[in-house]
Amino acid sequence: MKKSIGKRELVYPNPVFVIGTYDSNGIPNMMAASWGGICCSEPPCIAVSVRPTRYTYGNIKSTGAFTINIPSEKYASEADFVGIATGANLNKFEKTGLTPVKSELVNAPYIEEFPLNLICKVIKTIEIGVHVQFIGEILETLVDENVFNKDGYPDIDLIKPIIYDMPGRSYRGIGEYLLKAYSSKNKFD
Amino acid sequence: MKKSIGKRELVYPNPVFVIGTYDSNGIPNMMAASWGGICCSEPPCIAVSVRPTRYTYGNIKSTGAFTINIPSEKYASEADFVGIATGANLNKFEKTGLTPVKSELVNAPYIEEFPLNLICKVIKTIEIGVHVQFIGEILETLVDENVFNKDGYPDIDLIKPIIYDMPGRSYRGIGEYLLKAYSSKNKFD
Repeated sequence: MKKSIGKRELVYPNPVFVIGTYDSNGIPNMMAASWGGICCSEPPCIAVSVRPTRYTYGNIKSTGAFTINIPSEKYASEADFVGIATGANLNKFEKTGLTPVKSELVNAPYIEEFPLNLICKVIKTIEIGVHVQFIGEILETLVDENVFNKDGYPDIDLIKPIIYDMPGRSYRGIGEYLLKAYSSKNKFD
Repeated sequence: MKKSIGKRELVYPNPVFVIGTYDSNGIPNMMAASWGGICCSEPPCIAVSVRPTRYTYGNIKSTGAFTINIPSEKYASEADFVGIATGANLNKFEKTGLTPVKSELVNAPYIEEFPLNLICKVIKTIEIGVHVQFIGEILETLVDENVFNKDGYPDIDLIKPIIYDMPGRSYRGIGEYLLKAYSSKNKFD
């Protein structure tokens, strides 16, 4: 039996993205965001939604650029913190000790310590409601050398990304192997 | 050190959504999709991207509606299958034995066996590239009665959602508890 809980933005899993931007003074900022995901394969694009009240919003509007940085489990506290504090009166990089690196391609910093960084140029801005969605074309994908496996691709068990469980107000890791993808073609014959 | 792997739509975690639609003959269809996520809190909205070549695309264009259904781990094979097969010449509900239930609010079916169903009306259609992004306003959120915990909220460990690891071509479960959300406000003082 199903129970209706009304109109709720409830879905699983939610990612933990950290958006990197510069403000108008060139001060780097970062903000955690879970409302987003890949939205196109070619050109490769990612969507992320930000409230106009957030400092990051003005930064993206003025620079037309951002990075999406995927924290490893060991940076869960940093990711949590940068979702709470505002960059309007605080340099969150200095506070956390994380390292901003200016992208060579756009006017946005990526986070050196995080294993995956997407360098993005805004190509569309979609007004929805309390959130505005930025669609960024991914101009470059940077991966930490230490998270490639012996087959030469980025390994989820080395990246150790974080999942945000909104109703449970918690962060979770990646769990057990369930199934090989694209293996079920003849499963229901 | 970072290694550039070019322009890649690589991010973690990717969700496993199953989109429910009706075709022009009223035949229910479902399709797995991982390019999407919540995009607004108020009104609650979810974005999902679909290639125009997919049967689901025409269905959404003609009905203006879809559901997003979150499979539990035990339906990993079904979710994998409905991402491979096309509804153009196959009733994927009949094939898998899953049950389509017509929403009372929109012209789209939800999947009875899956623990979470979002009933959506298309409010925006964004042309990006090889994928078109549909933004759906969530008109109702349906949750299986068995996945509420004793505190009265949907429990991620009862829902058991699936994560798609693209480079690893695998599906994964939800992992261990890492941190309480919103707990790090004073962590870096």
